[in-house]
Amino acid sequence: MPHAFRPPANAVVLAGFMGTGKSTVAQLLAERWELANVDTDTLIAERVGTSIAELFATQGEEHFRNLETEILAELSNQEGLVISTGGGILLRSQNVEMLQAMGPIICLHASPQVILARTADSDERPLLNKPDPQGEIRRLLAEREQAYGRADYHIITDELSSEQVAERVQELVAADPRAVFVTQLPVQLPVALEEDSYTIHIGEGLLEATGTILPPDESGQQAAVITDAKVTELYAPAVTASLSRAGWDVRLLTVPAGEASKTLATAGQLCEQLAEAGLDRGSVIFALGGGMIGDIAGFVAAVYMRGIEFVQVPTSLLAQVDASVGGKVAVDLPRAKNLVGAFHQPRAVVVDSRTLDTLPDDELQSGLAEVIKHAAIADAEMFAYLESNLERIMNRDRTALKYLLARNCQIKAEVASADPHEQGWRVVLNFGHTVGHGLERAASQWQLSHGDAVAAGMIAESQIAVEKGLAEPAVVERLSRLVEQAGLQPDLSEVDFDGAWAALSSDKKIRQGQVTLPVVPQIGRVEVTDQVKLSDLRGALVRLLV
Amino acid sequence: MPHAFRPPANAVVLAGFMGTGKSTVAQLLAERWELANVDTDTLIAERVGTSIAELFATQGEEHFRNLETEILAELSNQEGLVISTGGGILLRSQNVEMLQAMGPIICLHASPQVILARTADSDERPLLNKPDPQGEIRRLLAEREQAYGRADYHIITDELSSEQVAERVQELVAADPRAVFVTQLPVQLPVALEEDSYTIHIGEGLLEATGTILPPDESGQQAAVITDAKVTELYAPAVTASLSRAGWDVRLLTVPAGEASKTLATAGQLCEQLAEAGLDRGSVIFALGGGMIGDIAGFVAAVYMRGIEFVQVPTSLLAQVDASVGGKVAVDLPRAKNLVGAFHQPRAVVVDSRTLDTLPDDELQSGLAEVIKHAAIADAEMFAYLESNLERIMNRDRTALKYLLARNCQIKAEVASADPHEQGWRVVLNFGHTVGHGLERAASQWQLSHGDAVAAGMIAESQIAVEKGLAEPAVVERLSRLVEQAGLQPDLSEVDFDGAWAALSSDKKIRQGQVTLPVVPQIGRVEVTDQVKLSDLRGALVRLLV
Repeated sequence: MPHAFRPPANAVVLAGFMGTGKSTVAQLLAERWELANVDTDTLIAERVGTSIAELFATQGEEHFRNLETEILAELSNQEGLVISTGGGILLRSQNVEMLQAMGPIICLHASPQVILARTADSDERPLLNKPDPQGEIRRLLAEREQAYGRADYHIITDELSSEQVAERVQELVAADPRAVFVTQLPVQLPVALEEDSYTIHIGEGLLEATGTILPPDESGQQAAVITDAKVTELYAPAVTASLSRAGWDVRLLTVPAGEASKTLATAGQLCEQLAEAGLDRGSVIFALGGGMIGDIAGFVAAVYMRGIEFVQVPTSLLAQVDASVGGKVAVDLPRAKNLVGAFHQPRAVVVDSRTLDTLPDDELQSGLAEVIKHAAIADAEMFAYLESNLERIMNRDRTALKYLLARNCQIKAEVASADPHEQGWRVVLNFGHTVGHGLERAASQWQLSHGDAVAAGMIAESQIAVEKGLAEPAVVERLSRLVEQAGLQPDLSEVDFDGAWAALSSDKKIRQGQVTLPVVPQIGRVEVTDQVKLSDLRGALVRLLV
Repeated sequence: MPHAFRPPANAVVLAGFMGTGKSTVAQLLAERWELANVDTDTLIAERVGTSIAELFATQGEEHFRNLETEILAELSNQEGLVISTGGGILLRSQNVEMLQAMGPIICLHASPQVILARTADSDERPLLNKPDPQGEIRRLLAEREQAYGRADYHIITDELSSEQVAERVQELVAADPRAVFVTQLPVQLPVALEEDSYTIHIGEGLLEATGTILPPDESGQQAAVITDAKVTELYAPAVTASLSRAGWDVRLLTVPAGEASKTLATAGQLCEQLAEAGLDRGSVIFALGGGMIGDIAGFVAAVYMRGIEFVQVPTSLLAQVDASVGGKVAVDLPRAKNLVGAFHQPRAVVVDSRTLDTLPDDELQSGLAEVIKHAAIADAEMFAYLESNLERIMNRDRTALKYLLARNCQIKAEVASADPHEQGWRVVLNFGHTVGHGLERAASQWQLSHGDAVAAGMIAESQIAVEKGLAEPAVVERLSRLVEQAGLQPDLSEVDFDGAWAALSSDKKIRQGQVTLPVVPQIGRVEVTDQVKLSDLRGALVRLLV
């Protein structure tokens, strides 16, 4: 992403010099995406009842720019636009800011010769009615160079047809999560990990397109869809059918639903079944389900024949925004969860936002705890968005969910890619989890959900940070309010202090009494501190539980 | 290694210009290694009864070089020397070849100013009794530049004390397997794998030095020695004591001996035991035993807490020359061996050649099959050495075994490093194993050893290659003779053809009927061919078994 992610947008904006093809490309894209197409110059000409050339000649540039600003203010309130703009619109900072708030800005470029050739037959270009038009073009391009630099993306159009430019815009937009608010395109988030790089695909109805998104290397390549008994009814037919249509030789392997299946024994049985079905080192596993399935199927992929490729197809919010991204796979041992595992990056992640329509509320809330965590550590704007839009989210508003999926996968991917083997910075994802895991492990028989535990953990850890002067008090206040709004109201009345303290103090991330704790100094930022002692954590537990 | 490995040597040779410190360093090294120290100039002076200066003045350089050649011929037959040489000895190609056959040549260098300062007070330097000595030094250095380039290693001594130069020579020599014939130093073979690089330590009595070779990062670091019930009696006390002395906090985990222990269930139990003992992500596993232990303990290290470091301490010839190097770890499933595993590079490999003293003959022979394979695919000189020295080897001759260990680890490491995830070239290590595995799997109840199966496989696969014109007939003849000499005489009379054919044709390396087969066109070289068809392999099995 060239810029930090910005919250919800309503348009895709094409900018650039005259003759670069903005209007034509905008029309093509609007048709393709079934969106409205508007052109700021056309809107202005309609409003004043004269041509732009005449307006410029009689009223001057300043007046024209004022009209542009006026038009943009109106467009800001509309939904789903492809906007082509006047060639100088980015010269005014106010216009740039308004456009940036509306959506990704793509600037089209062309060389002076090409521009002259493309505009030679037009008399509607006010700035070019000069004796040395090519010189004039050069002068203007130089003058606007900095303004055009404010766009998010740039395309050199000299040797491209309008269709090709439209294609390129579509690629850029598909990789920009803001676009989910404008187009119905799936988002394609690249995760850069050298030879382990992969793409996260996010969109509506992607389960039915799994095979199209990930075709086999050659027809007949073997695939195994691993899922659980619950998910298999809901989604397995769509996925296996899509894979078969694309040419995969597919078999479906099902394990009982629930964390109890996440064992070495089950992993061994799955490997046996893969071998029995004849899967070789070139075969691919599709992990279809929640976090449990992603973990065990990913682990099987990591160890079967010393490692084969796998695709994450997460179907719960928690798995979609957290577990499916980052390459951590594991099974449980009786003694502790995730004790046996690997770092094994998926070949791709396919997130179908429609799976959230049928997700029970408590599972949605569990995922929201990680969403709130991501916002707290990395994105103040998303935090503010959550504060104003929780009802939309709980009502499964399509646009809101797609925004959350895209932005959260992006944050998770950025942190995980910077530290693929969890040797340093990735610890920031542990915000709320040190206390949270302690509560969760002590409370297992009372079914304290992961989300509730993490919510309580984020608040407790932030309280310690505030007391030590490491965080501003607003962090605790806003977290507490948002967590409550999200329906995360952990009932800790039956969590046993001794059990929680035993679990917390044996946390594998605590070494020789040293705690490496991520803290949120203010919403949207995270730091790692060694100033919090084990005794501080004990104090927090006492406060929560005694 | 700067040069291809050469067979057994008897000396470490120091060469270089006068004043670079050859004699002093040679004396230091000879004391340190308890070897004899000889200086070619001194030997010549003693023989002719005059000083070198006088000899040069009266008889000329040609005569002097003849005497050098004469002296070298005599030294070639002596054992365990550190030789310092005259400054011009490398000028004559014949001398260079003789020295190269004797052992690694280390050339010491210094700048003209330093040489002049170090030799200013000597009147024993015939070539420097000239009006402009520094100019003379420059002239001679330029003249000898090419000759000095023939040395194996180079050290710039300007800013080093003699002790420091000796230290540096020792490091170079320790990484050169030829040195095992000269010094009693352990060999230290570097395996270059970027961030996964490690060293293979080979020497006598290294088990007792495990802790010294691999000290903990800090005192109290946790280690687990994983071994089997048979090996634990023989070697565990020495290893755990050494690790404890070095500051490791050690615990010993033992599994029953034999391939039956190499299961996921046992791996899970070991992980539970590690967790119970409190081992964390910074702890280290030492795999002490044969191939089975290296495989399962390495697999446990690959998956415990998503991967911790481990050290291979192989105690059988097969594990030492093959399984412990290359990062392949695995456990078996009922359906097939090594079906669940990982590529997990060890932090180090520690090979104690003394463990071979107690290794039963049949296990030594099983390892020899892989040794013969390495020689066949990569080293004609080692093959010839095996042909002449099998009795020494079977009698556990220390020097012969150390040579084999060092050279075989080197070959295995070179091939494995070039292809760490076994996606291409590493298939050459499979020479003899396509047919071999088929025989082995069909014969499991008759206990056909891996070595016997591979021996039969190498011959059968080479026969096919000869028939197809891919190999010279001498390959089959020499392989057959050597295999027999080594006591590898597979009794195939009870191997069932149908079983072997079923096993061979379901080999995971055969895809869609395509066989990618390594063949040895002549001893010491290997190629990969797709010209051998599954039907050819069937024919070979018919010949062997029907």
